[in-house]
Amino acid sequence: MSRNRQLRLGASIHGVGSSHTAWRHPQIPSDASVSLSFYTQQAQKAEEGKFDFVFVADGLYINDKSIPHFLNRFEPITILSALGAVTSRIGLVGTLSTSYSEPFTVARQFASIDHISGGRAGWNVVTSPLEGTALNFGGKPHPSHPERYRIAEEYLEVAKGLWDSWEDDAFVRDKESGTFFDPSKLHRLNHEGEYFSVQGPLNISRSKQGQPVVFQAGSSDSGRTLAAKTADAVFTGPDSIEEAKSFYQDVKQRAAEYGRSPDEILIFPGIGPIVGVTAEDAERKYREIAELVTPEKALQYLGRYFEHHDFSQYPLDDPFPDLGDFGSNSFRSTTDRIKKQAKEQNLTLRQVALREATPRTAFIGTPEQVADVVEQWFEEEAADGFIVGAGVPGGLDDFVDLVVPILRQRGLFREEYEADTLRGNLGIQVPANRYTKEEAI
Amino acid sequence: MSRNRQLRLGASIHGVGSSHTAWRHPQIPSDASVSLSFYTQQAQKAEEGKFDFVFVADGLYINDKSIPHFLNRFEPITILSALGAVTSRIGLVGTLSTSYSEPFTVARQFASIDHISGGRAGWNVVTSPLEGTALNFGGKPHPSHPERYRIAEEYLEVAKGLWDSWEDDAFVRDKESGTFFDPSKLHRLNHEGEYFSVQGPLNISRSKQGQPVVFQAGSSDSGRTLAAKTADAVFTGPDSIEEAKSFYQDVKQRAAEYGRSPDEILIFPGIGPIVGVTAEDAERKYREIAELVTPEKALQYLGRYFEHHDFSQYPLDDPFPDLGDFGSNSFRSTTDRIKKQAKEQNLTLRQVALREATPRTAFIGTPEQVADVVEQWFEEEAADGFIVGAGVPGGLDDFVDLVVPILRQRGLFREEYEADTLRGNLGIQVPANRYTKEEAI
Repeated sequence: MSRNRQLRLGASIHGVGSSHTAWRHPQIPSDASVSLSFYTQQAQKAEEGKFDFVFVADGLYINDKSIPHFLNRFEPITILSALGAVTSRIGLVGTLSTSYSEPFTVARQFASIDHISGGRAGWNVVTSPLEGTALNFGGKPHPSHPERYRIAEEYLEVAKGLWDSWEDDAFVRDKESGTFFDPSKLHRLNHEGEYFSVQGPLNISRSKQGQPVVFQAGSSDSGRTLAAKTADAVFTGPDSIEEAKSFYQDVKQRAAEYGRSPDEILIFPGIGPIVGVTAEDAERKYREIAELVTPEKALQYLGRYFEHHDFSQYPLDDPFPDLGDFGSNSFRSTTDRIKKQAKEQNLTLRQVALREATPRTAFIGTPEQVADVVEQWFEEEAADGFIVGAGVPGGLDDFVDLVVPILRQRGLFREEYEADTLRGNLGIQVPANRYTKEEAI
Repeated sequence: MSRNRQLRLGASIHGVGSSHTAWRHPQIPSDASVSLSFYTQQAQKAEEGKFDFVFVADGLYINDKSIPHFLNRFEPITILSALGAVTSRIGLVGTLSTSYSEPFTVARQFASIDHISGGRAGWNVVTSPLEGTALNFGGKPHPSHPERYRIAEEYLEVAKGLWDSWEDDAFVRDKESGTFFDPSKLHRLNHEGEYFSVQGPLNISRSKQGQPVVFQAGSSDSGRTLAAKTADAVFTGPDSIEEAKSFYQDVKQRAAEYGRSPDEILIFPGIGPIVGVTAEDAERKYREIAELVTPEKALQYLGRYFEHHDFSQYPLDDPFPDLGDFGSNSFRSTTDRIKKQAKEQNLTLRQVALREATPRTAFIGTPEQVADVVEQWFEEEAADGFIVGAGVPGGLDDFVDLVVPILRQRGLFREEYEADTLRGNLGIQVPANRYTKEEAI
């Protein structure tokens, strides 16, 4: 390892679980997705473990086939704000779509969370994969995959511009002279682009960390390019260490092409570790969750990636059906992977569905075994860190209590927070205000 | 008093004050508008006083003439969510405009605050008075005053419809049978109107109080009609008890025309009480604030109501200029009142500007005197309650510590919260879910 890298950790709070049936597990409170006490407890546990951030995913379209967690859950801006008031050091990252919102509002809301939390906000930029989303927002057709990413790129340009509306020393607040702010440090963006026209200024200042940290979560070609150009961190879902390494290399390479250092963009695979006292104990935990899945629910879960396609029309034990291009305007990187694996490994529909419903990753076993895999991925540059979801109930607690101490012993993970902002802990620079920079030249 | 009315109180949290110069007062922390500790302390003080709610105002357009509090402040959705985590009984009401947002998102965010707080959310519906707002949201022309209210009415229809997406007993959560929800209790709105097309369902359930409480803040004719049709409560800014009584009567009458009981819509004048140990002490406090205002700042403040009109072009001591219709597409009820008063009372520009910058209301004096005015307005049906802003620094603390105990002694105000939801404390019914009602017929 040539660079002085340090492992980073996020915790994805998933309420009643990321599958159709996890909520049935006796240890999952079945209202967890709308329970402030559940979210608070998870965030405080992650903070106790000195995690860099909590992560709240999102979506804007449901139907009766959606997984339980999606049906009835907190909206990210609100729950992150609430968690900001009951935590003090951990970062607060949430998903918000650039396809169905206004940059002025969203830039402002994340900036406001950034102030509430003293510089701990992060925004996971997504473009809304589901076509049905359009029906909740005016009914115009869902933009195509490439267009969504063009919108997102311009949107981020606007948001980052608005965040710099006030230079850091703009608010003088001199009671004696009556000078509240220095007008020369206030800037209008005057953005006029293909998709957005936004004058500014934003009615909130920069926080202690300058701007909220930008995450990006699309792994398609367009997603990677957007990340390489604009993101501080990437949330990805690789299937294997090989895939993860190739993704890692690719995104860092793309970032270099945009003149960025590889350290400026951190890669976070999402993992659902299953930790047991013994390997058998971990296997038992996996089976407990896997056995709650019926083939019917597994097909529903699979269908969501394909615009809620009805997979029950195909024989369960025939080879995975040929869907052609179907699904490519939605969760493209996921649907491409599923099709490719099914073909290469000759999988039946049942096999594909069950595997997707309860993914079985390398992050399973004793605390030492899981720590080994974490260390391997980190050292081999498959990851700069991980977003830890609860693969099984209590999964975050197990990871914090059992795996993190081992990572610490090995010198991989912090004993204490280095900073009180998210950028500070992630080791990402505070971006200079664009206007201040210009003046300094 | 024929009905069993009870006085209600809200606290408006205004950061560095509602005027250009209040922040200069030695007792105002000059970063209060972006200080979580300031907001928390104010909300907890109001909760200690058993207030019904805190109130967070908002706006979406600033320029270099805006008052300091507007330049750099928390966005309401975020700060209300944060306050939800550090309070337990007080309601959380915030302003959000229907002219520059998406009903799906806004319905969802308020519903989410409602869950975070256990049924304490309220939404103050406004239509964005300032024409400049359009420039931050795409640059299309700002809708006319009547059109903004037509949009708002349809918007509220959509939001209330989305809030009913799930019947109260929809989430079965039976782990044994694997039934998370009852599909017959899930409803799509399928709204197709003049301004909005929204399919639904919303991805969050109703809270303990059914739906967030709807406040409305426009006092123009269109504003009153909208309030009478759709609002649970009205925030208004009358100049005198006569004006307040006439407004009160008018809105209750309009509500009756829509088949509503007068108790279903509560009228809340906003007041900035100034309480002193003696009457002289109160006067001193008023002067301390009034003397911080320069004529220049007073003209700026006045200008804001008229699309940031430059009043410095007129001689200060000439009669208030004739502006014709100017200002009527913005804060119409305020600009109409200012023009009318100036004419009737033969006021100069200086007099109008200073009066608007530091309004001197009847709510000034000793705790007994202020309590007397509160009682009079309440008993004479000029108000169902008040939204108390800090007219001077420490104004909320003074009101809670000195005036509230007197209101209690007189049997006007509660000793303890009656309920743990905002509706419960306001004595407003939980609205039946529209779909459940239909089934019951």
